[in-house]
Amino acid sequence: MKELQEIVQGIRPADRSFMEKAKERTSRLVMPPRALGRLHDMAEKLCGIEKTERPETGRKAVLIFAGDHGVAADGVSAFPQEVTVAMVSTFLAGGAGINAMARHAGAEVFVVDMGVARDLDPAGLPNAGRLRIMKVDKGTKNFTREPAMTRDQARDSVLRGFEAASRVLEEGYSLLGTGDMGIGNTTPSAAIGMCVTGASADEMAGRGTGIDDRGLSRKKEAIETGLALHRPDSADGLDVLSKVGGFEIGGIAGCILAAAYRRKPVVVDGFISTAGALIAAALCPASTDYMFAGHVSEEPGHRIMLRHLGLSPALDLGMRLGEGTGAALAMSLLDAAARMHREVMTFEEAGIPG
Amino acid sequence: MKELQEIVQGIRPADRSFMEKAKERTSRLVMPPRALGRLHDMAEKLCGIEKTERPETGRKAVLIFAGDHGVAADGVSAFPQEVTVAMVSTFLAGGAGINAMARHAGAEVFVVDMGVARDLDPAGLPNAGRLRIMKVDKGTKNFTREPAMTRDQARDSVLRGFEAASRVLEEGYSLLGTGDMGIGNTTPSAAIGMCVTGASADEMAGRGTGIDDRGLSRKKEAIETGLALHRPDSADGLDVLSKVGGFEIGGIAGCILAAAYRRKPVVVDGFISTAGALIAAALCPASTDYMFAGHVSEEPGHRIMLRHLGLSPALDLGMRLGEGTGAALAMSLLDAAARMHREVMTFEEAGIPG
Repeated sequence: MKELQEIVQGIRPADRSFMEKAKERTSRLVMPPRALGRLHDMAEKLCGIEKTERPETGRKAVLIFAGDHGVAADGVSAFPQEVTVAMVSTFLAGGAGINAMARHAGAEVFVVDMGVARDLDPAGLPNAGRLRIMKVDKGTKNFTREPAMTRDQARDSVLRGFEAASRVLEEGYSLLGTGDMGIGNTTPSAAIGMCVTGASADEMAGRGTGIDDRGLSRKKEAIETGLALHRPDSADGLDVLSKVGGFEIGGIAGCILAAAYRRKPVVVDGFISTAGALIAAALCPASTDYMFAGHVSEEPGHRIMLRHLGLSPALDLGMRLGEGTGAALAMSLLDAAARMHREVMTFEEAGIPG
Repeated sequence: MKELQEIVQGIRPADRSFMEKAKERTSRLVMPPRALGRLHDMAEKLCGIEKTERPETGRKAVLIFAGDHGVAADGVSAFPQEVTVAMVSTFLAGGAGINAMARHAGAEVFVVDMGVARDLDPAGLPNAGRLRIMKVDKGTKNFTREPAMTRDQARDSVLRGFEAASRVLEEGYSLLGTGDMGIGNTTPSAAIGMCVTGASADEMAGRGTGIDDRGLSRKKEAIETGLALHRPDSADGLDVLSKVGGFEIGGIAGCILAAAYRRKPVVVDGFISTAGALIAAALCPASTDYMFAGHVSEEPGHRIMLRHLGLSPALDLGMRLGEGTGAALAMSLLDAAARMHREVMTFEEAGIPG
């Protein structure tokens, strides 16, 4: 397995000269200047990532990173922990929201077990070839009392996410989307968001899958307790991840680094995935050049996280499911952007004076 | 040709009982309540339109209604009138923004000549089978001096748009998108928007294809002059259309009525198309049940128009091209919504206690 240091040093910024060439082409397309708005930004970013004048999205894969959370014991979620395993099975069976969105986008779904509390038996699961076991441990510790994981485990979760995503890229996929599954995981995500962006619990913590007012109070209290107890260093991604994070969040960070390392675009899903993106950006700021924000979720803190990363969400549809659903839906917009940039005639080709 | 009265009376509201059944299914999907946000609203609206529990989008067509405008002589656009014809040719050749977006969405593009100033010669045009000649007249009159068209011409433009769209539906298409082409047509659209919603010129008139400050002043002055001169009756769609509208805007209104008449969904594009939707809604309020707002454009008044119609835009990407580009892009989201509603398992099917 590669060392984290080696990975970070291997990630280069996107290519500015190809982005400039792309902007020049945009200015010649047979339409008023930049009349397709954000689609131009997406297409030009793709050109810089792929070092091409003719961007293509190619084969698509959504990786759902799954893990459980010790802090779930504090009653921070509306669902019991067993649902994590049940949903992994539903993903493999093709019946969840992400499966419908992925079929829509023409994307394959892979599930990566980063730290589900129960051992998964591939023999008893449908389409087990789509399940990748990268388990770091059987769920994190409850961060209101002890660090969620050790620093070694934090590094391991990033490296295993990197490995899982690298394998998918080696299999010929060229556009990745991140997804998550883990009962309770908006709590560590909000903790990461507060630590990295400096936002308050009121700004960052939301209702997740739908907790009531008392649950929301418990959730904020748990986060504030954990942050006060461990005082993570916001500039040290592994420190933040180990103290208040989650294995699937580390996996998502690793997935993003893998895309950046191989100069491939990665669409970041919602609140939990963006917490992973904050870790990736803390480890390697240049990795943001490879990220597209799929959507902005109903979780109130998501906008703050995206602003911190300098990303504008492609979609704003009031979604709050996770699983990679927002990433899959936005992949289709990236397709449209790439196609537009390649296929629309210039004024000259259309024989119209610009 | 059908009479307008007959058409309006033939349009029934969407079916509330199928919408209720759809909401009930949404509540049983294996996810937190309505966790896919606006996608659920779209799917449920489709169920009400199509009277089905399993919504399908089917074959898609974007109809670009083209027309010229007498008011263009007042210098309200950044482009000369000849560009209308040149762009019609580009649409047929497949090289415009809408062609790329339509290929992305799997939609066919049809161009309907409602009132282009020059006669089009199908023999000299590529893919002339996609061009439908429904010309009411060679461009409207300049509404700063006289009504844009007669009341008979206004009725005719709606009926010809209805006929063009009905023919496309008869050819087996089942999801329509509206589009427009006509140099100067944000000016009549803003005039319609001001008249129907009561907004001011400052709120409603924008830079269109990119006029400068002086052009924008001229545009606002032209609109205010026209509205003061003709005082259209905001409750009378044909009066508004005849005094300050356009032939392609009437065609778009007719297209929307055709979809509603046959219980098919129609995705309304941006500023000009929504002006057409305001006319359709004035003629037949129930037609809004069949409309989806594709996107919200950069034209500042578009949000005000959409609010007046009670529509929420699917996309907000800073687009301002027209041609049907926002409608085509949003068709793909409707596909995703319909698929999600049909394909996602219920909690019961997934074997997970809700």
